[in-house]
Amino acid sequence: MPKNLIVGQSGGCTAVINATLAGVVDEALGESGIDGIYGMLNGVQGLLEGQVVDLRAEAAATLTGLRSTPSAALGSCRFKPDPEQLERLLALLRRLEVRCFLYAGGNDSADTSARLERLARERGYELFVIGLPKTIDNDLPFTDHCPGYGSVARYLAISALEAGLDTEAMHRFDPVKIIEVMGRDAGWLAASSALGKRTDEDAPHLIYFPEHRLAVDRFVEDVQGVYDRLGYVVAVVPERITDPSGNVVARSTEPTFVDAFGHAYFDSPAAYLAQEVSGRLGLRARFDKPGTLQRMSISLASRTDLDEAYMAGRAGVRDALTGESGSMVTLVREPDPEYRCTTGLAPLAEVANNVKLMPREFVNAEANFVTEAFVKYATPLIGDPLPRYARLAKHTVPIE
Amino acid sequence: MPKNLIVGQSGGCTAVINATLAGVVDEALGESGIDGIYGMLNGVQGLLEGQVVDLRAEAAATLTGLRSTPSAALGSCRFKPDPEQLERLLALLRRLEVRCFLYAGGNDSADTSARLERLARERGYELFVIGLPKTIDNDLPFTDHCPGYGSVARYLAISALEAGLDTEAMHRFDPVKIIEVMGRDAGWLAASSALGKRTDEDAPHLIYFPEHRLAVDRFVEDVQGVYDRLGYVVAVVPERITDPSGNVVARSTEPTFVDAFGHAYFDSPAAYLAQEVSGRLGLRARFDKPGTLQRMSISLASRTDLDEAYMAGRAGVRDALTGESGSMVTLVREPDPEYRCTTGLAPLAEVANNVKLMPREFVNAEANFVTEAFVKYATPLIGDPLPRYARLAKHTVPIE
Repeated sequence: MPKNLIVGQSGGCTAVINATLAGVVDEALGESGIDGIYGMLNGVQGLLEGQVVDLRAEAAATLTGLRSTPSAALGSCRFKPDPEQLERLLALLRRLEVRCFLYAGGNDSADTSARLERLARERGYELFVIGLPKTIDNDLPFTDHCPGYGSVARYLAISALEAGLDTEAMHRFDPVKIIEVMGRDAGWLAASSALGKRTDEDAPHLIYFPEHRLAVDRFVEDVQGVYDRLGYVVAVVPERITDPSGNVVARSTEPTFVDAFGHAYFDSPAAYLAQEVSGRLGLRARFDKPGTLQRMSISLASRTDLDEAYMAGRAGVRDALTGESGSMVTLVREPDPEYRCTTGLAPLAEVANNVKLMPREFVNAEANFVTEAFVKYATPLIGDPLPRYARLAKHTVPIE
Repeated sequence: MPKNLIVGQSGGCTAVINATLAGVVDEALGESGIDGIYGMLNGVQGLLEGQVVDLRAEAAATLTGLRSTPSAALGSCRFKPDPEQLERLLALLRRLEVRCFLYAGGNDSADTSARLERLARERGYELFVIGLPKTIDNDLPFTDHCPGYGSVARYLAISALEAGLDTEAMHRFDPVKIIEVMGRDAGWLAASSALGKRTDEDAPHLIYFPEHRLAVDRFVEDVQGVYDRLGYVVAVVPERITDPSGNVVARSTEPTFVDAFGHAYFDSPAAYLAQEVSGRLGLRARFDKPGTLQRMSISLASRTDLDEAYMAGRAGVRDALTGESGSMVTLVREPDPEYRCTTGLAPLAEVANNVKLMPREFVNAEANFVTEAFVKYATPLIGDPLPRYARLAKHTVPIE
């Protein structure tokens, strides 16, 4: 008996989450075991409000276009259903005769999916629940890496190189640049800024990680050290980092905003650190904060990441049809000498409660740069070779 | 008698100033009237220190590579020579037997070039001084537009569209985004963020300009208005804007840094405005500040801009060889129905003392968006069509 399928997107957007959606729809369209192909708008929050759309009715060109459209075409949510809402979600899925529930997101979405799967089981309703991994932060457990990460990693590797060219050329008047990148808890994104660096001169010169506390004095000393050696400095800091006393590094330790979940958001660490460098070293320090642009750039997206995100979507549909439930699709790095990636499965309930921080061996002893082991891990994820930049040989002309 | 030529780069970097350098060298290599082809490192400041390199000795691959390498390969400076230093510069040029002096930059560089030309004339030394236009700010007079501008314009048009997709998808929890762009005095860059917008939903929804004062109350009201209509808001603000009392819009009206020329740098207006929106409207507002990344992105550079920057470099050499001096190469928009651009000349001394702000007819009556006249002016400058993003038709599935 053909089944109806529903898919939703949740949490922060990425450049490739729509590629995952396209994978789901393309695979479902080719499966005779699937009847209705539905999308929930704004995740389970929209579903609760009855916002469901028919993805079979979309034009083929739109589905192809999704593979190169950043953001979340179905809309997203950050929403934790309470037990009553979970019952209502299940009732809605019953009314829609949905048997395959696919939900793309990070830890919170995994938690929602795991709870929904358990409830369906308890209520005796056959529902195949599959999580699709999505987070630029790369901090989901069990998966080698997360769709979304490789694209931001590519963006940051290129941005760091280009910021380095800028800072080097302007070292006489703008010698210090601080780039603030995403990643509140895990340093995977900060680390990725190193992936284009070939020489000591190339940026970045310093990278800091949310997993390792940072004293402002120490930061200023590190900057001074690189400046003394090269005459210019590019440092990468995460959007949240704490000092040795556990206070956020920012002009104020008070949050600038607290959201409905009680998540606190703080002022920019880069703005503060730039001001400290300018004040203490008398060097003009600027900061760049690409913010949400880093996760939305389709021009700088990783082809590998786009392909794997699509693959994860397709795999999720196949897994649901073979009777899997309560699992998240994972990306599995094959042990071949050449990089090759397939998919696997991990229990959603365990995904929900674990975060994968940067392992210690990916960070240098001083906790201010990555190691070769990290570069080896991450380089295949950013796809095609990076742009090559010309550098003049600069043969001196003697002046008589 | 063959002449030696020297070229230098000055001021803020761009994605295309090396294309101008490549144009100069390529043209000079083909001219039998040119003997030595020299580069000054870090502009006239490096020249004063005798830092001169031989550009004939560079590999052909390096010269080709310069056409797609952002930044300033010769290094840059922000330096105003005093009369004595100007004399020393002239003495060095004499010793190098340089007869063609080409200098890429903005108003300050035009001023240096104009003074050098005048001094050479007074001292009876035949020196052909040509300025090459360069500024992302697009605020040089006499030229239809400036090499460097089209590339940042393309970057910002794409960034605004992508930020809009992000904000729309996440409107339930991150409904307001403020993008801070470069342009301290002129609003050309802020304006360019509109160039991808097709519909009312597309970002940006609000644009503000340094030429027009902005009351914070008014900004918050504008944001509220768009939010009430669409449910999400992307606003673009320049890196410096003043309120009706003439104070900079920032958390503090005190500068964060004052450079050697007495230029004051202030705190981020976007950080402040985001905080005000969050506090007054209870909506989470984020800010993106691409900073120097916007002027360095070769992946998002405008093909038209790269080509015109190269063309300006070639034209400058030809102009010097035909005896022009004390002039800046300009870009001239031909009156054809199809966009076509050639080069012309303008007096350096007048370039130095004029700034081209956005004309009033390019800004709407409320001073919070651009007009069609601006879009018509700027669209050809950003080159190839922008990426197309898919949008779901969203046919509703009724729930029985």
